Amino acid sequence: MLQYPEKIDAIGVVDHADWKHPKRVAFEPKKFDDTDIDIKIECCGVCGSDIHAASGNWGDIPKPVVVGHEIIGTVVRKGPKCTSEFEIGQRVGVGAQCYSCLKCHRCQTDNESYCDKLVTTYGQFFDDGYCSKGGYASHIRVQEHFVIPIPDNIPSEYAGPLLCGGNTVFSPLIRNGCGPGKKVGILGIGGIGHMGLIFAKALGAEVYAISRNSKKKEDAFKLGADHFIATSEEPDWAEKYYDTLDLVIVCAGSLKDVDFEKLPKIMQIGGRIVSISVPEQSEQIVLKPFGLMGVSISNSHLGSIEEIKQLLKLVSEKNLRIWIQKYPINEANVNEVFERMEKGDVRYRYVFTDYDKEFN
Amino acid sequence: MLQYPEKIDAIGVVDHADWKHPKRVAFEPKKFDDTDIDIKIECCGVCGSDIHAASGNWGDIPKPVVVGHEIIGTVVRKGPKCTSEFEIGQRVGVGAQCYSCLKCHRCQTDNESYCDKLVTTYGQFFDDGYCSKGGYASHIRVQEHFVIPIPDNIPSEYAGPLLCGGNTVFSPLIRNGCGPGKKVGILGIGGIGHMGLIFAKALGAEVYAISRNSKKKEDAFKLGADHFIATSEEPDWAEKYYDTLDLVIVCAGSLKDVDFEKLPKIMQIGGRIVSISVPEQSEQIVLKPFGLMGVSISNSHLGSIEEIKQLLKLVSEKNLRIWIQKYPINEANVNEVFERMEKGDVRYRYVFTDYDKEFN
Repeated sequence: MLQYPEKIDAIGVVDHADWKHPKRVAFEPKKFDDTDIDIKIECCGVCGSDIHAASGNWGDIPKPVVVGHEIIGTVVRKGPKCTSEFEIGQRVGVGAQCYSCLKCHRCQTDNESYCDKLVTTYGQFFDDGYCSKGGYASHIRVQEHFVIPIPDNIPSEYAGPLLCGGNTVFSPLIRNGCGPGKKVGILGIGGIGHMGLIFAKALGAEVYAISRNSKKKEDAFKLGADHFIATSEEPDWAEKYYDTLDLVIVCAGSLKDVDFEKLPKIMQIGGRIVSISVPEQSEQIVLKPFGLMGVSISNSHLGSIEEIKQLLKLVSEKNLRIWIQKYPINEANVNEVFERMEKGDVRYRYVFTDYDKEFN
Repeated sequence: MLQYPEKIDAIGVVDHADWKHPKRVAFEPKKFDDTDIDIKIECCGVCGSDIHAASGNWGDIPKPVVVGHEIIGTVVRKGPKCTSEFEIGQRVGVGAQCYSCLKCHRCQTDNESYCDKLVTTYGQFFDDGYCSKGGYASHIRVQEHFVIPIPDNIPSEYAGPLLCGGNTVFSPLIRNGCGPGKKVGILGIGGIGHMGLIFAKALGAEVYAISRNSKKKEDAFKLGADHFIATSEEPDWAEKYYDTLDLVIVCAGSLKDVDFEKLPKIMQIGGRIVSISVPEQSEQIVLKPFGLMGVSISNSHLGSIEEIKQLLKLVSEKNLRIWIQKYPINEANVNEVFERMEKGDVRYRYVFTDYDKEFN
């Protein structure tokens, strides 16, 4: 019978100062609640957030810091009060959120990712003081609402990154009308941006990839872009694409990389600029109100669980494939991936695999 | 027969340094184009923009500076290529815009107020170098697209302020879904804000008046507010109204008066903060991206001509009345109104009347 261990094995950061060298660790799981589900992890994508949390960019987190929130695994235990229809052994996923109150107005309107009581999958505290721990680990214990069934035709390593990075760009696309007849820009062609190109195209929009230079031009067209704007190579890009886009999703790592004087110029009236980047808490942007005439700017958080399900349906039905690079999970490989992530050396999403070898 | 004079009489600013003492002046009208309409002015509302332009806040403008862009009058001449059905003697209005190209994508999608070639009703240059002059004058000459028929049951002095101030708040209300089931805030209860309360209520929303103190509380309820938030008197207003509003129209004179740390907290996810204030060009706002999580901010310009027509229809059908204070136009009264506007001493819109007495 599938059993949940008393201690969970993991690769975790034991010191923010030495974050690039995580160690093999073991930790106690959170208390089992009656609506929790225990999952034996099979693979996990690597998100930019992992680097922020591991390195201490987002503040000091109790050690070991076990990151990873693009988790695929199988159900090994269901709480006695679970109402979901998961079966033991079923393949499921967990994204960047593992808890919310499920009672407030936001939770009840499919905005649980904006719930005041939100606990992210790693590095945040439950009411009892337990600090959440993520998917670079043998197992995870999660409130059933945040456990997502995975369609059969999506291989696990391609499904993982959809759960956080994928949904983070999918949510603002569908909340802001991405679809046929719309011109949609994806600014920043990295891990999340590359998925943005795939999904925007699949949703039927005319897609503009926006990057600083042309290095990813060929990739962008393969991923689904209809147009490519290299802002540092086309000094007049704001004039050339004046009054063009309905929606831009900013997937850059920092808003400081975005020219907020120029970007609104390429928007149509009523156009929306939505940033999904999660910069350092202290980061500020300075706007001249005149620059936002007729154009809105906003910041989008994680998408909802319902949106993850919609995204998985889209990916399954259209047989979409994100671009990933696989690494068997172990100390050396987590170190190498962290080094490469820090340099931006990724095409386009790392996924840790072979959990059975490391944790059995 | 109604005739257009060779020179137009006006009350104009002859020196920005002495802007509060405009003088009786006369100026040559712009060249008559084949699609222009000449209007004999009957009354004109006083907009905050008049003060900005007269005082030189928006830069040096050729003298005389003749402001006023909430104009009601009668048609006295139609260009030979006019295609509109205006009749000589018909009562019409002119708002804050007197020209656009009418050909570009923005003009053709009812966004002519965002046209690159826009000329505002005063203080901006036509291609031939003529600087536009507004409604504190006996007559005005305007491209027919920007001439608006006035429904019979709206008295002229109540119609004037709808054409700029009224439409400036009406446009973002209807573009952002104000209507039944929506909770809509009007921040800043001045000339434009007071109209915002009336229109938001008439459109069926639940209306929140937001002001620094309670001085206008009683008025706000009479105007249509269902709730009143006095931000300086309720230190916990952001917590008290957490997750409440769908839309806030910021009608404050300066964005520096707005607490962008707190305001997003009272918005629902997907909520929109739209500013209609036209601050000094150099004004900047500093935002922490985390503060805009799930909430957008934008700046709205003048509404479209089509929206002015929709607004007049609403006001006519629902027999709405804005709150005005009338002054016969003359040097002394323009001086007094400018003095009072500068002090914010207005409940809630001044309208200059009795043009026949001053300019005949």
